[in-house]
Amino acid sequence: MNILFVMYDQLRFDYLSCAGHPTLETPNFDRVAKMGVRFTQAHVQSPICGSSRMSFYTGRYASSHGAQWNGFPLRVGEVTLGDHLRKLGMGCYLIGKTHMVADAEGMTRLGLAPDTVIGARQSECGFDAVVRDDGLWGEGPDGFYDRKRSPYNEYLKSKGYDSENPWADFANAGVSGDDIASGWFFRNADKPANIREEDSETPWLTDRALEFLETAEGPWCAHVSYIKPHWPYIVPAPYHDMYGPDDVPEAVRSELERQDPHPVYRAFMSNNIGKSFSRDEVRAKVIPAYMGLIKQCDDQLGRLLDRLEETGEIANTMIVLTSDHGDYLGDHWLGEKDLFHQQSVKIPLIVYDPRAEAEATRGTTCDALVEAIDLAATFVEVAGGEVQDHIIEGRSLMPFLRGEAVEDWREVVISEYDYSVTPMRAELGVSSRDARLFMVFDGRWKMIHAEGGFRPMLFDLETDPQEFRDLGGDSECAAEVARLYGHLHAWGLRLSQRVTRSEADLEAMRGRGARVGILPFLYDGSEVPEALTEKYRGTVKRDYTKG
Amino acid sequence: MNILFVMYDQLRFDYLSCAGHPTLETPNFDRVAKMGVRFTQAHVQSPICGSSRMSFYTGRYASSHGAQWNGFPLRVGEVTLGDHLRKLGMGCYLIGKTHMVADAEGMTRLGLAPDTVIGARQSECGFDAVVRDDGLWGEGPDGFYDRKRSPYNEYLKSKGYDSENPWADFANAGVSGDDIASGWFFRNADKPANIREEDSETPWLTDRALEFLETAEGPWCAHVSYIKPHWPYIVPAPYHDMYGPDDVPEAVRSELERQDPHPVYRAFMSNNIGKSFSRDEVRAKVIPAYMGLIKQCDDQLGRLLDRLEETGEIANTMIVLTSDHGDYLGDHWLGEKDLFHQQSVKIPLIVYDPRAEAEATRGTTCDALVEAIDLAATFVEVAGGEVQDHIIEGRSLMPFLRGEAVEDWREVVISEYDYSVTPMRAELGVSSRDARLFMVFDGRWKMIHAEGGFRPMLFDLETDPQEFRDLGGDSECAAEVARLYGHLHAWGLRLSQRVTRSEADLEAMRGRGARVGILPFLYDGSEVPEALTEKYRGTVKRDYTKG
Repeated sequence: MNILFVMYDQLRFDYLSCAGHPTLETPNFDRVAKMGVRFTQAHVQSPICGSSRMSFYTGRYASSHGAQWNGFPLRVGEVTLGDHLRKLGMGCYLIGKTHMVADAEGMTRLGLAPDTVIGARQSECGFDAVVRDDGLWGEGPDGFYDRKRSPYNEYLKSKGYDSENPWADFANAGVSGDDIASGWFFRNADKPANIREEDSETPWLTDRALEFLETAEGPWCAHVSYIKPHWPYIVPAPYHDMYGPDDVPEAVRSELERQDPHPVYRAFMSNNIGKSFSRDEVRAKVIPAYMGLIKQCDDQLGRLLDRLEETGEIANTMIVLTSDHGDYLGDHWLGEKDLFHQQSVKIPLIVYDPRAEAEATRGTTCDALVEAIDLAATFVEVAGGEVQDHIIEGRSLMPFLRGEAVEDWREVVISEYDYSVTPMRAELGVSSRDARLFMVFDGRWKMIHAEGGFRPMLFDLETDPQEFRDLGGDSECAAEVARLYGHLHAWGLRLSQRVTRSEADLEAMRGRGARVGILPFLYDGSEVPEALTEKYRGTVKRDYTKG
Repeated sequence: MNILFVMYDQLRFDYLSCAGHPTLETPNFDRVAKMGVRFTQAHVQSPICGSSRMSFYTGRYASSHGAQWNGFPLRVGEVTLGDHLRKLGMGCYLIGKTHMVADAEGMTRLGLAPDTVIGARQSECGFDAVVRDDGLWGEGPDGFYDRKRSPYNEYLKSKGYDSENPWADFANAGVSGDDIASGWFFRNADKPANIREEDSETPWLTDRALEFLETAEGPWCAHVSYIKPHWPYIVPAPYHDMYGPDDVPEAVRSELERQDPHPVYRAFMSNNIGKSFSRDEVRAKVIPAYMGLIKQCDDQLGRLLDRLEETGEIANTMIVLTSDHGDYLGDHWLGEKDLFHQQSVKIPLIVYDPRAEAEATRGTTCDALVEAIDLAATFVEVAGGEVQDHIIEGRSLMPFLRGEAVEDWREVVISEYDYSVTPMRAELGVSSRDARLFMVFDGRWKMIHAEGGFRPMLFDLETDPQEFRDLGGDSECAAEVARLYGHLHAWGLRLSQRVTRSEADLEAMRGRGARVGILPFLYDGSEVPEALTEKYRGTVKRDYTKG
């Protein structure tokens, strides 16, 4: 068995036709959904790229792996999906984005050079990188967003896109007269990107994935990780005008939300992103482009699926389609991600298991409370291993793929957000340490705890599926709040760092003390079998005092 | 400034004359207490050697570093005291015991060989090991407790102690007729160990420490870590009969404690160790030997102090005397350590700072709630650094040494114990994961939370200083329980794993997005200063479509 682990960046759970989008047709996503199971309650461990991805790639909660925001390095030595899979004989490869930042200080401390196999894996959160490109080759007064190599930019240069940063000047920009019309400006989102469609980011990465499939020797897990439909919202023809004003839904937002909002929510609404996405002209420009980007992703997914069918590999390849978080797109007066409304924290998750055991569930949906960290556990099981649950905190989804009853599944999903680096921290007047949010969601009630002395937020998705009414201050809901805090507090005390001792190791340790002669309770030895103490008995060998 | 960081293993807080012991005279401990500050409320992060020590050596709580019991390896890459101090130009050396087990699997994964400088530090929890010997060279059917080298055993062999394991057969055994009288049997605790006093463990290690002092080049932090007065309870002449029946106090225990005890406490009382130490003949044999071992430690401490005075180094050497946990010695119907009565969780802590700023506090005591992890923070400050509080969870004790007012000191001490490997886990019928205890102590109220569905234990040390009355089930104390749970739960959600980003790093990151051209909120660019977007503007360089 191989695993094709496809991630789209910032793909909202409901922007797929199989998930009920009214006008966006995604036949290739739907094709995988028909072959497998679509999880309707899948959530990320943190609604921001880097932190969410480190959870996917370690199977651990954000506050367990510690890389709690973009650009927080994953600490050296943290056990990754790649470490687990390689031990089981499965290669683990990266084609695309991870948002990983290496723990350079830790690597130096341990003498690990990035150009060694071990150092490269430490730098790439455990993957063997076939291609690594995170996109977002931003330019500002401080220069490149990231000075590391961009294979995509090199590719564009080789194709005649004449610029220091063709990612910015062609792939993510249109043309306005003789001028560059940057995709960073929403005003330009309806323009076609100034690039051949086949040279744009999504087809380029698909080509790399197809090259990988040609030569890959299994078993492998390939993380094909697209940087789209993440902003900049701009897409080449013909996708740029496939969707228009009629496809822009009314924003899911209510004036109720702006009346006496929770201070944290207020701060996020009133930041630049929230204010911008609250403008109708922004949504009118952005959403059709976002849909075009998804449509392009769908077409490129079709190429991957066709190839797997042509080669027959579809019969022994698990396919996973998911995202690292959603996109508010102006809903709840917010843009991007970062908070815990379902537009942000919920993700599409479609899993196809080719094996006969999964026959009964094909084309079905599963409403279990699923977390991003469950994929690492699932993949370990696919690779034939036992989940090392002293390290991986997620649980295998295999029973759901096989339609098996699961009695003791988790009762709540936990997701976290560290906003210590954002302007909202200063606005709220909290310390870096307190700039942290925790979501607890049981499928109906969603509570958000904010460190720093705030009251919790609370939503009842049964009576308020759109999450407009924050009941966190409602005394009638005190029992629900207390119950959800109970879950959060139990989770806070979870065993998450005993990563060097498995249950099997503990079992081997039990009783070992006595077996190796550590017996701190004997009066005269008669208390235990003689075999345990016989080495402590005997004749004194020599009177050293005469020596 | 240098730091002489002396640890005694299993030294109870109240077995020193400066701490009020009625008959044990420890003039050298008292001598340091007169020169410095004695902390009366110092607590370990876990009342067991290995876990406690890893907290001392990392400045982090047990559930943060994850080495939660003896023999649980400290994970590779965990930042240690040595890492912090070396960065500041201070060497960090080990002379004695650490109870460290290397994360062999992690080291293999990262390609670190134990015989390199980096690998050796990883194997020795960050110390450069001058001498490493943990003692406890037990022998049972499975052979040596630990097959690693024992410099102490090698020393004994070189001195004519003719045995494969002279640690067991001479240093920790007496003579009975022609037979070895093992110190593992409490019956033999009143016999003199069959060894020249100067060859016994404590003087041997002192000699190694004196050798270090002769050649050391500063600034250095030397962890002189004695394995005594830890069991086996046996000591050479003349210490073996310095104390007798009159020195054995009545056990601090009450029949009340055995009436309907908390299930966890009951399990510990009824294990082999508890049962054994509840016997009067065990206490009668053990306690005088324990006192003799401490007296020997005190004499050897005198040698170290004398040398520092002779060389004048006392003027630029901080001296710290402490222990990794206490010893029940039959109090509370228990032996050894493991639970949270003060006999176990409280430690002696005496700190001498030679500098003028500490003049005002010499010979005083400090009642602040101190934790073992505070020493790492203190040492970093001594070495001239800023405490990296995203890694080190303790706080510097320097203000107390200088008599400065501290407004926002911690309100509670947290200590933890993982009993997953002990027989009590099975007896209580809990899973490994649930075999964990947490103590929260505010100076008056001490609550112990047990995972696994038990009620908490609660003691009021004001009205019940001996900790006999468990109020955990008393409804009148519900408010205290809730308050202490509040502290525990806040602690459970603490930020403990963001070890790759300091506060300064966060500050540098703030606003960086815009500076490097990441601007996900612009409609037309007019929202921000032109400098932030000018690189996104310009003339389209070439019409690649003609290329």
